[in-house]
Amino acid sequence: MNSKRIGRRTVALQTPPSVLSFANIGGRMEGQGPLAKYFDELCDDSFFGEKTWEKAEATMQRRVLRRALEQAGLKPGDVDYVLAGDLLNQCIGSSFGLRELGIPFFGLYGACSTMGEALALASLLIDGGFAETVAAQASSHFCTAERQYRMPVPYGSQRSPTAQWTATAAGCTLLSAQGPGPYITHVTCGKIVDQGITDPNNMGAAMAPAAYDTLRAYFADTHTGPADYDAIFTGDLGELGHEIVMDLFRQDGVDMTRNYEDCGMLLYDRDRQDMHAGGSGCGCSAAVFNGYLLTGLKQGRWRRILFAPTGALLSPTSSFQGESIPGICHLVCVSTER
Amino acid sequence: MNSKRIGRRTVALQTPPSVLSFANIGGRMEGQGPLAKYFDELCDDSFFGEKTWEKAEATMQRRVLRRALEQAGLKPGDVDYVLAGDLLNQCIGSSFGLRELGIPFFGLYGACSTMGEALALASLLIDGGFAETVAAQASSHFCTAERQYRMPVPYGSQRSPTAQWTATAAGCTLLSAQGPGPYITHVTCGKIVDQGITDPNNMGAAMAPAAYDTLRAYFADTHTGPADYDAIFTGDLGELGHEIVMDLFRQDGVDMTRNYEDCGMLLYDRDRQDMHAGGSGCGCSAAVFNGYLLTGLKQGRWRRILFAPTGALLSPTSSFQGESIPGICHLVCVSTER
Repeated sequence: MNSKRIGRRTVALQTPPSVLSFANIGGRMEGQGPLAKYFDELCDDSFFGEKTWEKAEATMQRRVLRRALEQAGLKPGDVDYVLAGDLLNQCIGSSFGLRELGIPFFGLYGACSTMGEALALASLLIDGGFAETVAAQASSHFCTAERQYRMPVPYGSQRSPTAQWTATAAGCTLLSAQGPGPYITHVTCGKIVDQGITDPNNMGAAMAPAAYDTLRAYFADTHTGPADYDAIFTGDLGELGHEIVMDLFRQDGVDMTRNYEDCGMLLYDRDRQDMHAGGSGCGCSAAVFNGYLLTGLKQGRWRRILFAPTGALLSPTSSFQGESIPGICHLVCVSTER
Repeated sequence: MNSKRIGRRTVALQTPPSVLSFANIGGRMEGQGPLAKYFDELCDDSFFGEKTWEKAEATMQRRVLRRALEQAGLKPGDVDYVLAGDLLNQCIGSSFGLRELGIPFFGLYGACSTMGEALALASLLIDGGFAETVAAQASSHFCTAERQYRMPVPYGSQRSPTAQWTATAAGCTLLSAQGPGPYITHVTCGKIVDQGITDPNNMGAAMAPAAYDTLRAYFADTHTGPADYDAIFTGDLGELGHEIVMDLFRQDGVDMTRNYEDCGMLLYDRDRQDMHAGGSGCGCSAAVFNGYLLTGLKQGRWRRILFAPTGALLSPTSSFQGESIPGICHLVCVSTER
């Protein structure tokens, strides 16, 4: 096995890529939540000036990359690759959003784990010497996701208590071979894990075993445990999934209760905003990472964190056909020190 | 710019990864076509023994990987990563097909360019020293694609003359750091190119400018031209798109008429099988590459080829909303010599 791999599944990056800049965008609900001040842009118009919600999501993808570029003082031509994805059928949020920028494009589908998948591959492309600057990004939109996965929003369907709220949000990280940090030091690629959960309104429970699998593999590979990190963030398991991850680790004698949070529980206010089990969508963990988390690392709130977004790899068709819900979780370790 | 990159967009792999094994699967129509003898498995049952076509496509993804593993004498646990994608909403062909194998999974969405995207990223992961063995694969299914993009097959809708036929096929390449070849020597990542074509029944015309863009960038970066290769294969442009690519190069004074073919024109028999403009779908170029092309390299028919599959990044929703069709084309150079 190659020397860059430690243990079975984790890569320790030899020259950890640096965050060069980051940006996020949110909608009205995100602007009313506790992380509002960590957004670069909040837009009350769910159409973002466009005629359809799908075009709005594409606009978010384009704008969030432009903002990250501005903050780094770069032009689209300075970026070697953009790795992006979203929840829409055929990922039209990313492909239509990014088509005018002319940056070499690797399209990803990792459901709500996409921000982790993009950061992982972007880091490997840079550390491998194939790129100097790479953009990693993801988005979701409440109205496009409701129409596609459940019911069109104007129908006013009732949501079940375990349901999560798809964030209208996007986040972009520009990574570079050189920079002041924070740095991506480790990458663990997720496996598809399916424990037989069939309720598409309880995706936290479906994804929790994948988060447990990836985090456990990472801890084993690196010979570390939760106490070695200032904070650990999954996303977007919501309350129920967060609870299950802690339970699964408890059975192994590992205490996750002290510093483990979930992006889906951070984005909205449990009391003031009725989001049921919490936030979800590619944009939820993407916006939390490219706002609250990276700002916290920059400002010294944390020195080393794990970011492990989770995705539910279902479609309405797979659920109609009685399938259970496979989950996946990609992890990156982010540190202020190389 | 990093030394591994030559020109603006192409990576010359320092230790070109080797094809370790390859496999493909096709359906009834593929078994009646001119490439039938290059398939490892041909199945007359469009359900592949499953209850739905979507489950059938997942079965193809699983089986094609198992076949490639068998041929290399490997187990799923020997594979460091699998990179896979398909055309289905939320890519359920790959995620459901691969969930039981427990291999770290990077999900891709590149429409019909997915086989090229998977080979490109797999090669970079190996050359970067992050993996020893990686599987790259893609699939499509006529009946799942018709239902999703156009009309359910039982409706018997008429197809337009420029329409292509989505292949029921899958292909998998196992790449490794060590091996007897053929080798992936160069990778060029595609840009999203949109020239304003809006007819979803004429995807060859929509994707041709992307193929031209990537091939032109590759020729410029490597200071080579069509005559430096034994054969050049795009996929899946079909007849019309193939014509357009030759026209675009003709305007540059570059002759593509001698050795340029398209996977969509190879898979079916123009006279005996009425496929209109040709084959398409992720599985078309994936099956042609992992059969006819790699066998041809192995048997000495060619020594150096370009494989440049093209994807149309549309969805039914984007077409309903009046959007044009963005295309993308990822390229790999495959050679019997390192």
